[in-house]
Amino acid sequence: MTLSDRSTAQDTLEATQRTQIRRIPQRGDYDRETIDRILDEGLICHVGFVVDGQPFVIPTSYGRMGDCLYIHGSPASRMLRSLSGGIEVCVTVTLLDGLVLARSAFHHSMNYRSVVLFGTATLVQDFEDKQAALKAFTEHIIPGRWAEVRSPNRAEVQGTTVLSLPLHEASAKVRTGPPIDDEADYNIPVWAGVLPLELQTTAPIADPQLTSEMPIPEYIRGYSRRSVVSNKTP
Amino acid sequence: MTLSDRSTAQDTLEATQRTQIRRIPQRGDYDRETIDRILDEGLICHVGFVVDGQPFVIPTSYGRMGDCLYIHGSPASRMLRSLSGGIEVCVTVTLLDGLVLARSAFHHSMNYRSVVLFGTATLVQDFEDKQAALKAFTEHIIPGRWAEVRSPNRAEVQGTTVLSLPLHEASAKVRTGPPIDDEADYNIPVWAGVLPLELQTTAPIADPQLTSEMPIPEYIRGYSRRSVVSNKTP
Repeated sequence: MTLSDRSTAQDTLEATQRTQIRRIPQRGDYDRETIDRILDEGLICHVGFVVDGQPFVIPTSYGRMGDCLYIHGSPASRMLRSLSGGIEVCVTVTLLDGLVLARSAFHHSMNYRSVVLFGTATLVQDFEDKQAALKAFTEHIIPGRWAEVRSPNRAEVQGTTVLSLPLHEASAKVRTGPPIDDEADYNIPVWAGVLPLELQTTAPIADPQLTSEMPIPEYIRGYSRRSVVSNKTP
Repeated sequence: MTLSDRSTAQDTLEATQRTQIRRIPQRGDYDRETIDRILDEGLICHVGFVVDGQPFVIPTSYGRMGDCLYIHGSPASRMLRSLSGGIEVCVTVTLLDGLVLARSAFHHSMNYRSVVLFGTATLVQDFEDKQAALKAFTEHIIPGRWAEVRSPNRAEVQGTTVLSLPLHEASAKVRTGPPIDDEADYNIPVWAGVLPLELQTTAPIADPQLTSEMPIPEYIRGYSRRSVVSNKTP
């Protein structure tokens, strides 16, 4: 996102009937920077949509450009088959940061950051807009990769359904910190605290079909979601 | 799950209109063992439900006992306020196993295991059943923890909404292995392969309110989701 993109965005979104955090409202956050950082760190979202009254929740990858989230259309293809216009979706991204171990079973919890985004997803039809979205998908997953691989050809761009969703109606919810126990429980003699969780990489596995010794690029060796997000939203 | 539980379960679920894998069907799996292992390894699910035609997707923790998935009712409370009967939900659990780096942008992918479960969630009303579900929640997150902490008292059990969902209509979808490139792309001189991802723990953070030096239990020091699942579904 460039600074000029940013200047047109709302810094803080308005809570709506749908995005108002009702349960533990102090964990709610409507700040665009909080929301963007969570979206930029996540790798997959869960897309919810309705067909004949039936909810569907499908995991898929995504990308963000400025004030829009882009998703691959295939997960919604059940719906796209019957609808030509926009479709109502709820897109949720959740990052797990830790297990919160309290002294009572009841106060066990998790530290997490999540974003829930509502809106009408529309098909991206323009060829260049679709190309840009495909680049955003790749760069969202592995920044630096796009420049090194073969770009999508015309048939690949045309064969990919891309949906765009404005970042207008969204909320973040965040829990951090130690367990909160009932006062009477603090003297129970059991370890309490947080067991942090992090999505980490292990050693890269080369494709057996690599024809020659190929160095592993720096953007793979030094990969972490936290560095991805700090590069995108400084 | 005990062996006697298991003998009453269907080993392989029937694909239905809703669970039939349409996109890349060879990744679909209706085997209960595959489904159970994914559910047992996951920490959170995304619950989808519909209010006035609007989809909601909320992340929450869960537990499995035999042929039922249990979720905290709070995420569905918008709906429970207006409905006394069962509610139609779609519950999705997704585990990310790796980034799949192909030679073309188009063939980039992710290795993952996911379960999509459909059904009617009903309120668990019986006091002892609710207690058992609360134990399943805690033991799902950290096996061994339940025995060491204060059990929920009557007010806590009564104050928690628990929903039960039968594991009857579900499918798993799994991608593993290296990238699959177009034949013509295999000679592009770029590293290709899989960057494995794993949800790992980092050093436990003691609650600042721990009153004395308390040893960190073995079930925390040796914690990993893979050992959790191998202990539950041998």
